[in-house]
Amino acid sequence: MSRYKLTIAYDGSEYAGWQAQPVDRTIQRVIEEALCRLTGERAGCYGSGRTDSGVHARGQVAHVDLARPAAPDKLVRGLNALLPADIRILNARKVPPTFHARRSVRRKEYRYFIWNAPVLPPFYRRYRTHVRTPLNVGAMREAAKHLEGEHDFAAFTANPNRPVKSTTRRLEQLRVTEKGNEIIIVARSDGFLYKMVRSLCGFLIRVGEGAVAPQETAAVLASRTRTARVPTAPPQGLFLWHIRY
Amino acid sequence: MSRYKLTIAYDGSEYAGWQAQPVDRTIQRVIEEALCRLTGERAGCYGSGRTDSGVHARGQVAHVDLARPAAPDKLVRGLNALLPADIRILNARKVPPTFHARRSVRRKEYRYFIWNAPVLPPFYRRYRTHVRTPLNVGAMREAAKHLEGEHDFAAFTANPNRPVKSTTRRLEQLRVTEKGNEIIIVARSDGFLYKMVRSLCGFLIRVGEGAVAPQETAAVLASRTRTARVPTAPPQGLFLWHIRY
Repeated sequence: MSRYKLTIAYDGSEYAGWQAQPVDRTIQRVIEEALCRLTGERAGCYGSGRTDSGVHARGQVAHVDLARPAAPDKLVRGLNALLPADIRILNARKVPPTFHARRSVRRKEYRYFIWNAPVLPPFYRRYRTHVRTPLNVGAMREAAKHLEGEHDFAAFTANPNRPVKSTTRRLEQLRVTEKGNEIIIVARSDGFLYKMVRSLCGFLIRVGEGAVAPQETAAVLASRTRTARVPTAPPQGLFLWHIRY
Repeated sequence: MSRYKLTIAYDGSEYAGWQAQPVDRTIQRVIEEALCRLTGERAGCYGSGRTDSGVHARGQVAHVDLARPAAPDKLVRGLNALLPADIRILNARKVPPTFHARRSVRRKEYRYFIWNAPVLPPFYRRYRTHVRTPLNVGAMREAAKHLEGEHDFAAFTANPNRPVKSTTRRLEQLRVTEKGNEIIIVARSDGFLYKMVRSLCGFLIRVGEGAVAPQETAAVLASRTRTARVPTAPPQGLFLWHIRY
């Protein structure tokens, strides 16, 4: 058995997320089918974590175990020749069997892209969340500062399928930057809760709209209760950007 | 009658080009249908020129005449609410009846985007031409220099449906720039022949691949004959970028 680390980019628009499911077309399943066609092996492709339906990845990472060794370059070319153009293997590398795409994660970075102008350019329609009303980026930054660090993020997660032991996470960075009509939210952590990034972004958008004052952030965190102040931001603005191992 | 100048962006992937045709879905027709639904008027939407099937526009310009005056802002919002997300009206402005989207053009700028790396990121699959083999940008620049200025471009046009009086054009600028894995060709002229930009780009790509030497450019021009040295580059890399009036 040889273990390979794959770095994968995908446009999530046409998929029911990463994780293989009985019925829907998912990115994991499409890659596993291509792997099977290429190598003849029914190998599982284990990702660093799920991404929701419609969420994109610039740097998803997965591992696969193959019984017959393969040259990493040939794996990249062979898989890309079989995969649809909205999924690309960027890189393949042989790794020791101790490497695990989910358990070995040291830090994950997500980026959320907002187009803040009256008209959304057609080329961005799948890759940006469109907010027409001008957002107060200063207020968003102030709220983001309150959210950085170790907190109980129960108010910023959706009910997961499986309950989690703890809803406390360390949010290393939550940064709001502005570039022309674009507002980018960068979120870094060694682990996120279910729908946590989109919940943080949904909240920051509400703050930017003036619906919630940034000073209320600490109280929202302390409430540990999900309310309408924390909507889930739409998936098409979100990219799993980079994973550090 | 009031005349309006519309600035339009579109993703051409799903359309049979700009120009209205009896059968196919075109950008012009979709806009005319939205205009009719919005205003109740069967107004023609006359573009600065055609774009081919699959070609995009960041700044196409068209004019429309409406019997009942409309506020430009409302025209923009009303049309965008009716149009599919891959066509956006960026701007509307009332113009004098002497303004003509095609005849008043002073300069057109096209940009052609090449992704020159082994793997094309999925987000670029509709907006870049993928060339895997490393291109010699220096050679492309040298060839481009030979093409700038006033020449008979008969070797760089496809047979148009209607013959043209003259195949001489003034190519004000043909510039090749490089930015990471991206190679961008900027072409500016007061008028291009049918498929001229894609022919110029197809030729420059062949030069970049080493299939044609840049010093042969003058001879290709002088031949005034279209041959296999001048292929038509694929449409998805091409954007009608800006029009000056």
